[in-house]
Amino acid sequence: MLPENTNISWVLKRIGDIQTENRPRPSPKPNEVEIAIKVTGICGSDVHYLVHGHIGDFVVKEPMVLGHESSGIVTNVGRDCKILKVGDQVAIEPGIPCYICHFCKNGQYNLCKDMKFAATPPINGTLCQYYCCPEDFCVKLPDNFPSLEEAALIEPLSVGIHACKLADLKAGQTVIIFGAGPVGLLVGAVAKASGAVKITMVDINQSRLEFAKNYVANEVILAVREIPQGLSSIDFAKKFSQKLLESGIEQADVVLECTGVETCIQTGIFMTKPGGAFVQVGMSTEVISIPITVIGVREIKFTGCFRYCNNYKQAVQLVSAGLINLKPLITHRFKFQDAMKAFETVKEGKDNVIKALILGME
Amino acid sequence: MLPENTNISWVLKRIGDIQTENRPRPSPKPNEVEIAIKVTGICGSDVHYLVHGHIGDFVVKEPMVLGHESSGIVTNVGRDCKILKVGDQVAIEPGIPCYICHFCKNGQYNLCKDMKFAATPPINGTLCQYYCCPEDFCVKLPDNFPSLEEAALIEPLSVGIHACKLADLKAGQTVIIFGAGPVGLLVGAVAKASGAVKITMVDINQSRLEFAKNYVANEVILAVREIPQGLSSIDFAKKFSQKLLESGIEQADVVLECTGVETCIQTGIFMTKPGGAFVQVGMSTEVISIPITVIGVREIKFTGCFRYCNNYKQAVQLVSAGLINLKPLITHRFKFQDAMKAFETVKEGKDNVIKALILGME
Amino acid sequence: MLPENTNISWVLKRIGDIQTENRPRPSPKPNEVEIAIKVTGICGSDVHYLVHGHIGDFVVKEPMVLGHESSGIVTNVGRDCKILKVGDQVAIEPGIPCYICHFCKNGQYNLCKDMKFAATPPINGTLCQYYCCPEDFCVKLPDNFPSLEEAALIEPLSVGIHACKLADLKAGQTVIIFGAGPVGLLVGAVAKASGAVKITMVDINQSRLEFAKNYVANEVILAVREIPQGLSSIDFAKKFSQKLLESGIEQADVVLECTGVETCIQTGIFMTKPGGAFVQVGMSTEVISIPITVIGVREIKFTGCFRYCNNYKQAVQLVSAGLINLKPLITHRFKFQDAMKAFETVKEGKDNVIKALILGME
Amino acid sequence: MLPENTNISWVLKRIGDIQTENRPRPSPKPNEVEIAIKVTGICGSDVHYLVHGHIGDFVVKEPMVLGHESSGIVTNVGRDCKILKVGDQVAIEPGIPCYICHFCKNGQYNLCKDMKFAATPPINGTLCQYYCCPEDFCVKLPDNFPSLEEAALIEPLSVGIHACKLADLKAGQTVIIFGAGPVGLLVGAVAKASGAVKITMVDINQSRLEFAKNYVANEVILAVREIPQGLSSIDFAKKFSQKLLESGIEQADVVLECTGVETCIQTGIFMTKPGGAFVQVGMSTEVISIPITVIGVREIKFTGCFRYCNNYKQAVQLVSAGLINLKPLITHRFKFQDAMKAFETVKEGKDNVIKALILGME
Repeated sequence: MLPENTNISWVLKRIGDIQTENRPRPSPKPNEVEIAIKVTGICGSDVHYLVHGHIGDFVVKEPMVLGHESSGIVTNVGRDCKILKVGDQVAIEPGIPCYICHFCKNGQYNLCKDMKFAATPPINGTLCQYYCCPEDFCVKLPDNFPSLEEAALIEPLSVGIHACKLADLKAGQTVIIFGAGPVGLLVGAVAKASGAVKITMVDINQSRLEFAKNYVANEVILAVREIPQGLSSIDFAKKFSQKLLESGIEQADVVLECTGVETCIQTGIFMTKPGGAFVQVGMSTEVISIPITVIGVREIKFTGCFRYCNNYKQAVQLVSAGLINLKPLITHRFKFQDAMKAFETVKEGKDNVIKALILGME
Repeated sequence: MLPENTNISWVLKRIGDIQTENRPRPSPKPNEVEIAIKVTGICGSDVHYLVHGHIGDFVVKEPMVLGHESSGIVTNVGRDCKILKVGDQVAIEPGIPCYICHFCKNGQYNLCKDMKFAATPPINGTLCQYYCCPEDFCVKLPDNFPSLEEAALIEPLSVGIHACKLADLKAGQTVIIFGAGPVGLLVGAVAKASGAVKITMVDINQSRLEFAKNYVANEVILAVREIPQGLSSIDFAKKFSQKLLESGIEQADVVLECTGVETCIQTGIFMTKPGGAFVQVGMSTEVISIPITVIGVREIKFTGCFRYCNNYKQAVQLVSAGLINLKPLITHRFKFQDAMKAFETVKEGKDNVIKALILGME
Repeated sequence: MLPENTNISWVLKRIGDIQTENRPRPSPKPNEVEIAIKVTGICGSDVHYLVHGHIGDFVVKEPMVLGHESSGIVTNVGRDCKILKVGDQVAIEPGIPCYICHFCKNGQYNLCKDMKFAATPPINGTLCQYYCCPEDFCVKLPDNFPSLEEAALIEPLSVGIHACKLADLKAGQTVIIFGAGPVGLLVGAVAKASGAVKITMVDINQSRLEFAKNYVANEVILAVREIPQGLSSIDFAKKFSQKLLESGIEQADVVLECTGVETCIQTGIFMTKPGGAFVQVGMSTEVISIPITVIGVREIKFTGCFRYCNNYKQAVQLVSAGLINLKPLITHRFKFQDAMKAFETVKEGKDNVIKALILGME
Repeated sequence: MLPENTNISWVLKRIGDIQTENRPRPSPKPNEVEIAIKVTGICGSDVHYLVHGHIGDFVVKEPMVLGHESSGIVTNVGRDCKILKVGDQVAIEPGIPCYICHFCKNGQYNLCKDMKFAATPPINGTLCQYYCCPEDFCVKLPDNFPSLEEAALIEPLSVGIHACKLADLKAGQTVIIFGAGPVGLLVGAVAKASGAVKITMVDINQSRLEFAKNYVANEVILAVREIPQGLSSIDFAKKFSQKLLESGIEQADVVLECTGVETCIQTGIFMTKPGGAFVQVGMSTEVISIPITVIGVREIKFTGCFRYCNNYKQAVQLVSAGLINLKPLITHRFKFQDAMKAFETVKEGKDNVIKALILGME
């Protein structure tokens, strides 16, 4: 049974330093539910804050609870709640927008400037015992949903759905995905479920590619880890894509770039069909160079991609319907008190780690 | 070996009367290929011409070769052909538009007013030994395509792809399909391959529904064959949809109506979610009544659907990739000389007939 | 100066009976502003409630303040307001959705099932001295906006923008509009501002057509008021559209139906180009008959249209930029205390009434 | 009267050397018409071939007739022609695609790999007496079209329409255009006709900006010609856009970049609203650097733009309807024999040259 008088939370105190802290148990506002967190997945961003203290302009200035890929069980409901009740198992959407700006009303709340996103400073995350959020940002798991573990992966799955939506991916199209980490694999899973007839995945890690092949890829390509000396990123990308074409890999209708690496972005552009779509899913450095005449003469639709919106329920249903299987991605599980080991494991990034979960406090 | 000096063809002479005729073997024009027809599927429209002599304004005034769902092997190529060569196995797209009108140039050649469509009078069909058509309206079967039998079903599969495209069907959506005949099943197969999380199929025939359940439906509904005496079509539809809702069947994101029956269309509108899409795939009588205020206050997108365009290659690839399995639909095969039995079988419409194929002359 | 201790409101007490009533002056909630209403346009729906007591399923069961096309000046702001301040002149969007349902979050709040729309029972309208609403549903008028009178017409203008958006109207397209009343004219104004190259307007009232010709129509068609005896609605529509085609009127890319009259809807379908869009803007009777095979073989996109969403600011800017001129539509002005004359005038529907305004209490 | 036995043509012999040549008068193929060229506009690309002998990979290897912005009068029709007749005045679309590839059939013939485009090597241009092309690539001028001079500008106007279509520009949106040359101005004219509520144009040339202000711009910005020493292109762009924002220029819904200059592209990205569209219309150098994280977190739709398709008729109608006025753009006219002066004038690019026309041989 969950200790009711504590709210033990994993707090990033300063760079490289996370500790548990017993924080006050929150009370749900009228439109909120309180959730006992049962599973939290570790995301690359959590590790990035832990190691670097910031991502771009988002800087951790005060201690912050980590975690934003969580599922749990409703333990209390605010007085205005109409959707959920105590005992419901839920997947938690961790970003709460302002509801009233143009973006929120226009179906693009991921672009809301007042977004409060869990574990993006200064907002506290979900790696705690009890967490409160508006009930309309929770999705109740249907009876045929596999488990609370898979529910924690709804968050990164939503990224995959959003990316494929931005690409306007249709049944019968071909896809190239750069990066076979959790996001690349989930993007691939959505592409597959959407009827992609060929999914080619590119990575620098052979074991990830083997995983990808067993999971959703029709074809995998091992890329070199370092650009050969004396070659610029763009020249390497040109040669690499030329080599791919010569080896029979075709330009794709849709390229989904999940690494953020400059030479991957460039190669991806070269590998996009005329009239095709390129979606930049991975976070990149601030400025990179691109072969813009290729984008021009091919009329490539090159689109940025930021988090997700309006697709959590859809994500849950794709899993419930058996069209996407999240279980194979869960490679590691840690007890709540062993969270540091989980971060360590993800940080080391050993080949066989795809998604590490931290279970709720017991 | 195929007799080279004959071109035996199944010709609809007049209502109810089809006979073989040895017609001149055609010569391909510069942009055409000649194809030895190997498999032809029987479509409801073939039977309709046979029985009624017309479909709407299209009237059979002169003897016409039937058949338009065909595959075959290239036996000759015109002098300007660049894509195909003798021996290639192909799926044949049976409608040749004018190439130069606004619709042809704008990606909607199915709306071309000068369309010449096989077995739509006065254009001869494909149920013959040798058939010529532009090479760009053939799709070469890739090595991993199952067989020329499945290739004959690419034509109705294209209808399914076109309908789902008009509905802008996306992964994660729910679908209701009226009609579990070949078109309804193929529409369902495309919906499934596109990530529909729930496919509900409605028919008046229990054995078709059982087939549908085994094929792609998540849920099936047996409808009554006759509207009860004293009830108008619209009142029946209102009661029926009310009953469905009460029994837990939910309004769908997308309704694909493949029967053309007035009360199905009406029920389908009642069962479409606000903001949802309704695509009228089946051919209906000229005028029907609809609950227009429902379309209005729900902002339903109600779209007509006519044949297909630009998706034959995609259809072939969906089958090659294993995302759609056409084999279960092939329930009957007939030798070329037994074509009349094939028409008879489809006409009688016994429960276990889904798709009957007529094999090429040997 | 506005009397501060009163809130005189025009209340529909029962069918045919409106009276002023001094209601309590409201206090804005934290997210609301209080507005001194300065101008209110009379809409056909106001008159319909007055005369019939209901529109479809919406029945006036208790006394209700009328009016929903209003502009005014902010007189008080709730404590959480960040956008508006006292003294701001605003156009008021009269429908407040729930903010949290799927439709609200997905950019379709007009489809929200918990919408509270002014002067749609049981929600009180804006024809009063003081009105409160969330600040995010007011648009501050920019300095170059003509006046508070035009601001009251932002509401019906939004209907026009929404209809053209649903039609996906593009520069260079041709348009036919049925109905040359306020909504038809505003739909036409938006079509013109969007680059429609030919706008044909159809009405049964010659003086309205003359107005339309001077306002935005390139071409007008006088239709007969009654279907000739012995002709069904559909047969009349078929003949009428045939006659139009013979007289050189062409099928249009976009048909915007603003009458709700069955034979207009039918004629509109016959007059829509293959691949074209038909938007049902006018409220119709519950069930009508349509030529569905025409929708089918032409692949017409037939779309319902319900109110509007996310376009109030756009409407204000189109007027500010001078791309739409609302002034000519304002044909009548009445003092607050003469509101009954205004309703009477609109009800009688004399030829020269387009939009009657009721000014705020002085 | 036009000399019938000659076909004097302006031929680019080698870099910097154009001469007239009497070439054989062509005969129209069955689907072609022969046109007596009456007006030809000079495009920057004509001058670029004259001065540099190539644009990107397109290299002039053999003598080539220049010109591709032309109008004329039909003098002969091929035997299969059904649309045009001798004496028709036409605007000529100068790029003839293959008609049969995927792009041609799918409504994107501008992406056809076998495109034969006038005055793009090795295809001869239109600056001659007689020119043959398929009748379906000519648009007959309606009676109310101003003149053959404006008809020569339909070609660059089509670029503007295509760019606005790729941006999905809607009435009520705001637009920033980089470059106030002929293409920038025409893009602006289309934006205005499409309902853009604010058009901001940026150029380094004050007199062009004055022209723009009188033509379609609501607001103009003079940019410096040279990036200050010691500042990278991206840093300059960041500072420049910061300065624009501080001076009250707002981020736009749509940015249309018509210069191809790296720092303009970068500034344009910084000046695009979240969720907005950026279309790269101008031809750039092969590789440039972009602020990709801005594209990412704002989900900007960055799209390449290559020529145009399916909009020539629309362009003619926008001019006929008076929604776009091309006359002010025609600043210079030259006799056929004075073509060299025309090229010289455009090459020197004096401030007051917008579009120079070469009239047909008399």
